[in-house]
Amino acid sequence: MTAPPVRPGRGRETRASILAAAERLFAEHGIAMVSNRQIGEAAGQSNNYAVGYHFGTKADLVRAIARHHAAATERRRLELLAAIDGSPDLREWVACLVRPTTGHLASLGAPTWYARFIAQADTEPALRQIVIAEVVATPSMRRNLEGLFALVPALPEGVRRERGDMSRLLIVHMLAERERALHEGTEPARATWEATAVGLIDAIVGLWLAPVTSPP
Amino acid sequence: MTAPPVRPGRGRETRASILAAAERLFAEHGIAMVSNRQIGEAAGQSNNYAVGYHFGTKADLVRAIARHHAAATERRRLELLAAIDGSPDLREWVACLVRPTTGHLASLGAPTWYARFIAQADTEPALRQIVIAEVVATPSMRRNLEGLFALVPALPEGVRRERGDMSRLLIVHMLAERERALHEGTEPARATWEATAVGLIDAIVGLWLAPVTSPP
Repeated sequence: MTAPPVRPGRGRETRASILAAAERLFAEHGIAMVSNRQIGEAAGQSNNYAVGYHFGTKADLVRAIARHHAAATERRRLELLAAIDGSPDLREWVACLVRPTTGHLASLGAPTWYARFIAQADTEPALRQIVIAEVVATPSMRRNLEGLFALVPALPEGVRRERGDMSRLLIVHMLAERERALHEGTEPARATWEATAVGLIDAIVGLWLAPVTSPP
Repeated sequence: MTAPPVRPGRGRETRASILAAAERLFAEHGIAMVSNRQIGEAAGQSNNYAVGYHFGTKADLVRAIARHHAAATERRRLELLAAIDGSPDLREWVACLVRPTTGHLASLGAPTWYARFIAQADTEPALRQIVIAEVVATPSMRRNLEGLFALVPALPEGVRRERGDMSRLLIVHMLAERERALHEGTEPARATWEATAVGLIDAIVGLWLAPVTSPP
């Protein structure tokens, strides 16, 4: 399903405020727990049907939020990839998996909701497919993974998939945990998003270089 | 809060059927989405208050489910630890993190709900503390982590915590993904729980041995 066409002026502002309210409520309460009516109220819409009118179904709304951020992370990844073109250093390719998101989160200023939104969407099978289509199955990510695979050529295809899943889960859930710690005022493991990226890059490099004792 | 005392006979069966129904519904729909009334109905209870009467709050119910399984995983971990006492092989200590849960899941037969239940509970901050208290902060886990830390002594305390979190997230979410794939009839990455354990152990060993380029 496609969303109805954007109308100029007021319509665009309404859509932006609905997107922001939905992202925050989804991040805090879980996507299944939040109704269109609650999103509309939080976005200051008096019309009960505003969310449905502007975005269609909940899946369409999740897609619109993911797409909104994916434009920024995609641009960041393409810049990083251009800078390391042909690099033989696995660490640089892993950094391209992590830094587009941590850099984007840092650029949003505090508080952010995107990391928890992604973790919530990633935990529901139907919504995960939407997030993967918008955020993971992108041209930059394909190039990023090809560059990474070229530097760990001995891995069986099944292990590549498995470690790809592990890398995604680590990035998604570690960033959501950090965002949650910031939100709750508890001390996060690392002081900044960039320091968090370094910890993730170190660990994910180790994960990809680990010997395979028994292929699937 | 403590649950009301267990009564013999019928009370014990009622409690078991409520626990089983709650675990399944929490795993499938998310813990926040499921009401005591729905659990009671799924457990064949005509009395609307049966769940509250037997288990108290939702947090108490989550604790009871976690505790039920933790008895089995704790016993498995103590056996594995006894067998590797003093081992200098990091891989064996990492195996003790992973195999109590994969072995327990294998022993339950298909279908299981426990892996998805834990992933759901781990995503809600208040419930996560309960799961950590029941499943993670146990005597066997303390010994397990001490043995592991002794073999990677150069890690700063903050990185230990960070990589402990990463190990937990990988185990919790990879096992939940496999259980979900089995449930939906899609092909899981590995054919058995034991093969899944091997993939996780390989990767988590790599994660712990990865050089630290910039401590927190």
